[in-house]
Amino acid sequence: MSKGEATRQAVLDRAAATASRIGLAGLTIGSLAADTGMSKSGLFAHFQSKESLQTQVLAYARELFSDQVVRPALAAPRGKARVRALFEHWVATGKEGGAGCLFVSASAEYDDQPGPIRDQLVRDHLDFADSVAQMFRTGISEGQFRPDADPDQFAHDLHGVMLGFFHAHRLLAESVAEARTRRAFENLLAAAK
Amino acid sequence: MSKGEATRQAVLDRAAATASRIGLAGLTIGSLAADTGMSKSGLFAHFQSKESLQTQVLAYARELFSDQVVRPALAAPRGKARVRALFEHWVATGKEGGAGCLFVSASAEYDDQPGPIRDQLVRDHLDFADSVAQMFRTGISEGQFRPDADPDQFAHDLHGVMLGFFHAHRLLAESVAEARTRRAFENLLAAAK
Repeated sequence: MSKGEATRQAVLDRAAATASRIGLAGLTIGSLAADTGMSKSGLFAHFQSKESLQTQVLAYARELFSDQVVRPALAAPRGKARVRALFEHWVATGKEGGAGCLFVSASAEYDDQPGPIRDQLVRDHLDFADSVAQMFRTGISEGQFRPDADPDQFAHDLHGVMLGFFHAHRLLAESVAEARTRRAFENLLAAAK
Repeated sequence: MSKGEATRQAVLDRAAATASRIGLAGLTIGSLAADTGMSKSGLFAHFQSKESLQTQVLAYARELFSDQVVRPALAAPRGKARVRALFEHWVATGKEGGAGCLFVSASAEYDDQPGPIRDQLVRDHLDFADSVAQMFRTGISEGQFRPDADPDQFAHDLHGVMLGFFHAHRLLAESVAEARTRRAFENLLAAAK
């Protein structure tokens, strides 16, 4: 990795953390300069514009989310064990304020704002939902879930469970957030048996 | 209602709609002036500061959400019918981009930002969760739900179902969003029987 690319990655890491906290829309080259101590002209050289910065932060967060949640799940055995691994890593990223949080806040920010960022968010979500449905589908072919269970419905339901977790854990700071989320997840699995 | 109060209500209505779209944090007296055609000094006379404006918009949205979702549910018979009525009105407010959307986006915006707005959001959510749990609890005493069903878990789970609906409907614009949400809700009710 060149020095320029290493700097770019370090700045994106910081920018993703900031965006998780204040939202992607609040992220500007000016606020990032204040946050990192870098000059605005230096940041412009890396990111060209506010929208390009936001797009690159989103791409960076997508990679981070894949590294933290999707890839570790794919390392688990196919079927139910993989669905469980996905859930565990997703919960962990929510507890750490990781990349998953950025997607939750950006989704609420951009759902009414047409444009390239919203389009990218939609693609990322659909790709991820497809991955979840595929993991579940393998559980059907392995005989671990009912043959008539609906993988896309499961992906939808699990997403709701996780949004409920982020809400209860991050906004309400409820000590029971994780326990309730685990019950909801077990109920989803039990309904698919 | 005095003319001043009528103006304040009309401006709050417009401000709540704007905040549902761009987020509560993006709402300033300057942006509201541009949006309504009113002078900034006139708006300052009504709202004093950006934070006071945001707090009043939140209070207005809470009343709207009560009018659109909670009060109509309380008009339905106690127990399961009331839980169903709550769900129906909650879905309707999500489809219309009503007050429910403002709470979803504001929750994601403020979960990492300590202060009076976050505190108010937490109180509003806990009050609402208590109302949902109470509606469900009545269904237990009416013999419509299992005696050992957990009303607080139900309120938590239903919130997740609704966050999943807002996400699928508003961000992804999925045509199946409502159908999947209805299935998720029926599964929750079935598990409580």
